[in-house]
Amino acid sequence: MTGLGARLRAATDARGPLCVGIDPHAALLRAWGLPDSAAGARELALTVVDAAAPRVGIVKPQAAFFERFGSAGIAVLEEVIRVARAAGLLVIGDAKRGDIGSTAEGYAAAWLAGGAPLESDALTVAPYLGLGALDPLIRIAQEAGNGVFVLASTSNPEGVVVQSARTADGGTVAATIAREAAARNAGAAATREWGDIGVVIGATRPLAESGIAADALAATPILAPGFGAQGARLADIGAIFGAAAATVIPSVSRSVLEAGPEGIAAAIDAHRAELSA
Amino acid sequence: MTGLGARLRAATDARGPLCVGIDPHAALLRAWGLPDSAAGARELALTVVDAAAPRVGIVKPQAAFFERFGSAGIAVLEEVIRVARAAGLLVIGDAKRGDIGSTAEGYAAAWLAGGAPLESDALTVAPYLGLGALDPLIRIAQEAGNGVFVLASTSNPEGVVVQSARTADGGTVAATIAREAAARNAGAAATREWGDIGVVIGATRPLAESGIAADALAATPILAPGFGAQGARLADIGAIFGAAAATVIPSVSRSVLEAGPEGIAAAIDAHRAELSA
Repeated sequence: MTGLGARLRAATDARGPLCVGIDPHAALLRAWGLPDSAAGARELALTVVDAAAPRVGIVKPQAAFFERFGSAGIAVLEEVIRVARAAGLLVIGDAKRGDIGSTAEGYAAAWLAGGAPLESDALTVAPYLGLGALDPLIRIAQEAGNGVFVLASTSNPEGVVVQSARTADGGTVAATIAREAAARNAGAAATREWGDIGVVIGATRPLAESGIAADALAATPILAPGFGAQGARLADIGAIFGAAAATVIPSVSRSVLEAGPEGIAAAIDAHRAELSA
Repeated sequence: MTGLGARLRAATDARGPLCVGIDPHAALLRAWGLPDSAAGARELALTVVDAAAPRVGIVKPQAAFFERFGSAGIAVLEEVIRVARAAGLLVIGDAKRGDIGSTAEGYAAAWLAGGAPLESDALTVAPYLGLGALDPLIRIAQEAGNGVFVLASTSNPEGVVVQSARTADGGTVAATIAREAAARNAGAAATREWGDIGVVIGATRPLAESGIAADALAATPILAPGFGAQGARLADIGAIFGAAAATVIPSVSRSVLEAGPEGIAAAIDAHRAELSA
């Protein structure tokens, strides 16, 4: 079984690291001329998958924009994930789930176990309850060859209250979470592979400003939002992430989706060109 | 429109503060002789609602244990919430959602807006991205007369890495989040009411140990897990929460649910008796 880290690396080698977000929020559905319903979200999402599949290796559906339609929206999300994976895309479920013990296992059963209804290659998880609380979920993910992206340093300004707080060792919360995640990839690091435990680090601040040591992340995939509308530029990944730039998966949503159904393929191509420039 | 705080207070005055968890995890379904399926979860959850409705004012379904069955599980959760509210219970959706901007609004549209598919009186939310990031969600909740419970200090030991980290003012993350939540209830505090913005504070540690000032929480509902199997005793609420004890809503799950379908009503009554002793 090939684990998440190896699959991410292979996808990145073959097609570049770009990840395309799938965010069917109300304003976007309106702009696409689609109804603000589960059916509208399905139409938008499958169009994005079609445009993404020949161009990138990774997509990231945002759970909230399906969950807002309740069970009907979750049924659509199940289909979208299935179709995307069948088309050869890796799927990162952006749901920011997090809880303890058997509850964490419940989320793993939903998203990460083999044959789970929403089985994704990876799930974003939130560590307010501690990364250790998520270990039951991580274990189930890895048993199925899947993985997680743990929120470390997010792209929004309100995040600093928690993420820049100082842990017992004097570092920031963001740095502690990133280090704890990277420690779970030690086996992969030893063989110069990518691990299955990624982190989310927004591209809106240089890594050093969050107190995160780039060197520690050599084997750790980094999902990086914050490009485009939020201010970061794809051309600046090296400057933002330094020694950790090699494992960065930049995620773009708004700037691609706002191109509309006719323009999305070209918008993805433009972002790819910007990345390889 | 009566807001969440006023409804919680009225429910607590009429029936006591006890909140009964609805946690259809696999081991529990097995113990109840039910299939590990959405249908099994439905049967268990509706039995709990039946037993709870004449005895307590508040129930707390755990989203993960429904989500693990995908859209079929979410359809059951929609029904359970609807039935519970129709029976006069207040429902706290325990989903620990959290995100920024329009995504936070997506979760509000799922759980908190008027007529939302999973409309609950309150939703638990996780503030790793900052409490400020959740303000769009809180605004939508309050417009519909609903509210949130923000994770501040959780009952699990792994939580201290993040929650005991020190914010810029020298306090803990837990204390900062609790203070920021309480500040959003300032209007209610002025009229000696309860606010719509609650906090989650585990009962497994005295409030002072988490660095949280009890005085600041006079108008802030406190959802308190950690009783029973996790170690805290209902009789000790005064000792654990001090001056904040009056707004504590103790939540019990395992110790009630493990009594099985025949024993659950008596188990709820026993907990109520322990609380009023």
